[in-house]
Amino acid sequence: MTKRSSKSAAVRAVKSRPSAVEGDDTAITALKLPPQELAPEMAAYFKKCEDKLGFVPNVLQAYAFDGAKLAAFVALYNDLMLAPSGLSKLEREMIAVAVSAHNRCYYCLVAHGAAVRQLSGDPPLGELMVMNYRAARLSRRERAMLDFAVKLTAEPWSIEEADREALRRCGFSDRDIWDIAAVAGFFNMSNRVASATDMRPNSVYHAQAR
Amino acid sequence: MTKRSSKSAAVRAVKSRPSAVEGDDTAITALKLPPQELAPEMAAYFKKCEDKLGFVPNVLQAYAFDGAKLAAFVALYNDLMLAPSGLSKLEREMIAVAVSAHNRCYYCLVAHGAAVRQLSGDPPLGELMVMNYRAARLSRRERAMLDFAVKLTAEPWSIEEADREALRRCGFSDRDIWDIAAVAGFFNMSNRVASATDMRPNSVYHAQAR
Amino acid sequence: MTKRSSKSAAVRAVKSRPSAVEGDDTAITALKLPPQELAPEMAAYFKKCEDKLGFVPNVLQAYAFDGAKLAAFVALYNDLMLAPSGLSKLEREMIAVAVSAHNRCYYCLVAHGAAVRQLSGDPPLGELMVMNYRAARLSRRERAMLDFAVKLTAEPWSIEEADREALRRCGFSDRDIWDIAAVAGFFNMSNRVASATDMRPNSVYHAQAR
Amino acid sequence: MTKRSSKSAAVRAVKSRPSAVEGDDTAITALKLPPQELAPEMAAYFKKCEDKLGFVPNVLQAYAFDGAKLAAFVALYNDLMLAPSGLSKLEREMIAVAVSAHNRCYYCLVAHGAAVRQLSGDPPLGELMVMNYRAARLSRRERAMLDFAVKLTAEPWSIEEADREALRRCGFSDRDIWDIAAVAGFFNMSNRVASATDMRPNSVYHAQAR
Amino acid sequence: MTKRSSKSAAVRAVKSRPSAVEGDDTAITALKLPPQELAPEMAAYFKKCEDKLGFVPNVLQAYAFDGAKLAAFVALYNDLMLAPSGLSKLEREMIAVAVSAHNRCYYCLVAHGAAVRQLSGDPPLGELMVMNYRAARLSRRERAMLDFAVKLTAEPWSIEEADREALRRCGFSDRDIWDIAAVAGFFNMSNRVASATDMRPNSVYHAQAR
Amino acid sequence: MTKRSSKSAAVRAVKSRPSAVEGDDTAITALKLPPQELAPEMAAYFKKCEDKLGFVPNVLQAYAFDGAKLAAFVALYNDLMLAPSGLSKLEREMIAVAVSAHNRCYYCLVAHGAAVRQLSGDPPLGELMVMNYRAARLSRRERAMLDFAVKLTAEPWSIEEADREALRRCGFSDRDIWDIAAVAGFFNMSNRVASATDMRPNSVYHAQAR
Repeated sequence: MTKRSSKSAAVRAVKSRPSAVEGDDTAITALKLPPQELAPEMAAYFKKCEDKLGFVPNVLQAYAFDGAKLAAFVALYNDLMLAPSGLSKLEREMIAVAVSAHNRCYYCLVAHGAAVRQLSGDPPLGELMVMNYRAARLSRRERAMLDFAVKLTAEPWSIEEADREALRRCGFSDRDIWDIAAVAGFFNMSNRVASATDMRPNSVYHAQAR
Repeated sequence: MTKRSSKSAAVRAVKSRPSAVEGDDTAITALKLPPQELAPEMAAYFKKCEDKLGFVPNVLQAYAFDGAKLAAFVALYNDLMLAPSGLSKLEREMIAVAVSAHNRCYYCLVAHGAAVRQLSGDPPLGELMVMNYRAARLSRRERAMLDFAVKLTAEPWSIEEADREALRRCGFSDRDIWDIAAVAGFFNMSNRVASATDMRPNSVYHAQAR
Repeated sequence: MTKRSSKSAAVRAVKSRPSAVEGDDTAITALKLPPQELAPEMAAYFKKCEDKLGFVPNVLQAYAFDGAKLAAFVALYNDLMLAPSGLSKLEREMIAVAVSAHNRCYYCLVAHGAAVRQLSGDPPLGELMVMNYRAARLSRRERAMLDFAVKLTAEPWSIEEADREALRRCGFSDRDIWDIAAVAGFFNMSNRVASATDMRPNSVYHAQAR
Repeated sequence: MTKRSSKSAAVRAVKSRPSAVEGDDTAITALKLPPQELAPEMAAYFKKCEDKLGFVPNVLQAYAFDGAKLAAFVALYNDLMLAPSGLSKLEREMIAVAVSAHNRCYYCLVAHGAAVRQLSGDPPLGELMVMNYRAARLSRRERAMLDFAVKLTAEPWSIEEADREALRRCGFSDRDIWDIAAVAGFFNMSNRVASATDMRPNSVYHAQAR
Repeated sequence: MTKRSSKSAAVRAVKSRPSAVEGDDTAITALKLPPQELAPEMAAYFKKCEDKLGFVPNVLQAYAFDGAKLAAFVALYNDLMLAPSGLSKLEREMIAVAVSAHNRCYYCLVAHGAAVRQLSGDPPLGELMVMNYRAARLSRRERAMLDFAVKLTAEPWSIEEADREALRRCGFSDRDIWDIAAVAGFFNMSNRVASATDMRPNSVYHAQAR
Repeated sequence: MTKRSSKSAAVRAVKSRPSAVEGDDTAITALKLPPQELAPEMAAYFKKCEDKLGFVPNVLQAYAFDGAKLAAFVALYNDLMLAPSGLSKLEREMIAVAVSAHNRCYYCLVAHGAAVRQLSGDPPLGELMVMNYRAARLSRRERAMLDFAVKLTAEPWSIEEADREALRRCGFSDRDIWDIAAVAGFFNMSNRVASATDMRPNSVYHAQAR
């Protein structure tokens, strides 16, 4: 309760232990997979990231050891997260973080937590998706969407028509249901690729949109 | 133990209840998403499926409501399961089924269980991947690969360097570790898209390569 | 998706690895327990199995190291699975497989999966009981029966009057409820004896009634 | 800590709420299954129970609605728990209680907890089997036996040769391993029959051998 | 079922193995933390325990290595368990045991199981709280209270307004809800301190109020 | 990946939904428990909080409905988190957050996540304790401490001497082991009181020490 540590105490603390994210920007995964030369389309995409974000997300650099894998990942990601959908971009990012919280994926929680903070303009919403989405003040629609995505993550074998009906009752169309499932599914994939390889997020995310 | 049902008893049984897979070939998912007209490349791909397999896998038909999603799925799938890799195609299919068994995904167990039977020429291997891969007589390499894939499926947050080291000790390279993770991740995605939509496998798979 | 392996590729595969069920018909368990000479009644029972099934189920051979244990097992098994009951033989076998699927028991899934295929004349029903009974097209009665049996398997401490009432509402009598519980209970026992001893099913089951 | 309730306070408490085991001796299960007339052999067995124990265990009365089921249960039970074995009767009862504790089975914990208290002459041993066998001061042999039985109860799919080897290293023979598995399996069955039917133990057990 | 062990057999058993609670009264925890001299207030409190209970509960002796920790623990404990509340002392002890049963805490189950037996004058109620509170004949109020406390123990993240509403419908006030949460929370703390240190209950508890 | 939302897009988003933490500073819990007048000692303590922190932590306001409960909580908290110990204050806060992450407690993750950021001077360390402590670059000592605390949280029944030995091998004394257990225990209590009452953290924490 009484956090009395002065700035100087904090500085001393910094000295006494290395950062918990030491090396995150240089050793992106635990696998030694040297990057290939980028195909022109991907080089342009990386350039666009640097222009718009100021950096290339580490997940892209992690995939850069193989041009075909990188291209397939980017195509799938961009379609799911950025293409037109009945779900807003914020809703898709909320699913990303709630799923990644279930799977406790460091990379995705950092990168997509930042996206929720930024897209919502409500930084604590990003925190709540990481911590426990049930504690957030959400609309009925948002809550139903996240309940479906997290149940699908935790016990996919138990999803049945009643679960789809619950979404329809909140106004989601069948296409929206597909998109919820596809985004939740995608992060169940990405969380595992990231955890399997100890993928590290760009450190710049931590302070974004706080 | 004593299964005395004669053929006629079995026939009677058939009459007394509809098949458990009634409609699997016609109502592919629980979502009403009418197919778009296929782009030429995808039309060619579907044609190739029909020529080689005798049918178009239902998962492709399920994705056909949206050309971009279909193309992204096919590109990712074909890269992971068919492109050159330190993992044989059979090994990749074994991961597919062991992961899908953890997630109890009807679609993927049926389709990829058939693939394991076919690629291995050892039908019980397909059954064992569905039932409990730990009960199969496997090489040390195969067992380590599946232990990693299933742990990554069940508790992705707990994968650490020791798990990667266990793979390396069995001769897997860092690139192989990526591929194990990527295939396991992919089926964690596909299992969830299939379960969320009640995706039904082509009924022809059931009897394949028995 | 594109399983292009020709027959010759499959044959090559067979050569490259031993079968996953190598030895299943000769080394029935991991325990060295030499069979006793059978008592006349049991010898007659084994003979009857050979006449009707063409083989003696390995579970009987596994119990044959002790005449009293064999006789007790056979008496209990035959009463539960073959004696008159409000549950059909197929229903009892469906419970057997759904319970064994929860417990991932190789022996029971193989032997009783075959029984479901045979008794139903609907091979995919056997597969679905192994994979995820929730994905099968079942009658309301069958579904309630399996929901009870699987809940009893997974969390026996949580069964209460409401669960019994749900069965009664589907037309099950109190005697039927006993039988559902007794069959589910029996396979929770057998699954564990089989898993503890690495009991192997007769390989002939794999291809039965496909 | 300070339990100051005098006897009279306790008596008042009794008045203020009905006993938590009201009716346990008269309404043995939640199922209405009237007893059949006992076959002579079973009548003699019930008589023997009354002579030796002073009562007929409720589980026998619960099975008495069907003579064949009763006889099969008694034969199996007596072989497992009373016939010669490398496991002492106390060891078999310890397995019974540790397994039943995992499954939180009221009937079996009461009846077999009493048996452990009685056979050991160490009443707290019975309590510890119910509460957490890991907290008891056990021999290395007892601990290995219970670890195997409880793992087999909780995750039967994960038992492998290493688990059997751990028992052999503590001096258990292959026959002993069978017996541990068979007793653990039996209580996984009985726990579920009891929980499914809300079977109630004879109230006399509660105070036995305290 | 047939427990025929005579007294002499039990005595023999006693000889053949040390008690499962050997040393519980002398080596209270697995940590070597010598007691400090008690402050006057605590010395008086220990004296009062001896006068009223006949002994000082081991948990107090375990905390006695540090006067401030002992005083803080006693103040919190006495406020929660003994101060005025809408919950009776018995109800609070029932929560203590049901929570400790979920956490399988030897110390708390023994000490507070005895308290439930004593306060209720119904010894089997104490057993049932240890074994499975769902099997006890409880009032609707008691059942709702324990369902909340055990859900809060097992999955605290999933408690929501509907859970509080269920308590209110049984007549609990908001202050009562706080008290249920606070007692359940307290034993989730104490269970862990006890388990972490292998804290042993005074052996006198075992036979109390049977 | 490509988060292109301009400031104005974010502002629009803010308009389209209320904040996820709406009301956190005014409706501190879901229970209607009006504060008592503070005793002088507690009034002074609240004053001190305001002077040092700029606010009174909401948990204190939540307990303020009852002076005795407030005093007991404060005494316990301050002893555990601020009194001399072989564990640094940062280490104690790291335990607090790792435990609260397992329990997904919104209040404690926000308040103590801020404390870890502040005390360490390494904001991502706070994030990692919330997300997955296994992904942080920690010293061997820190990792062992958190492994013990989280195992104690998840499966308290399974802690044994080997777990304590693992701590001793990292240089922790028996007194340190007590402190790790006591802090982990405390947050297992507080997490549950907070979750049971939907306790909301002061919104000022969210932006602290980023």
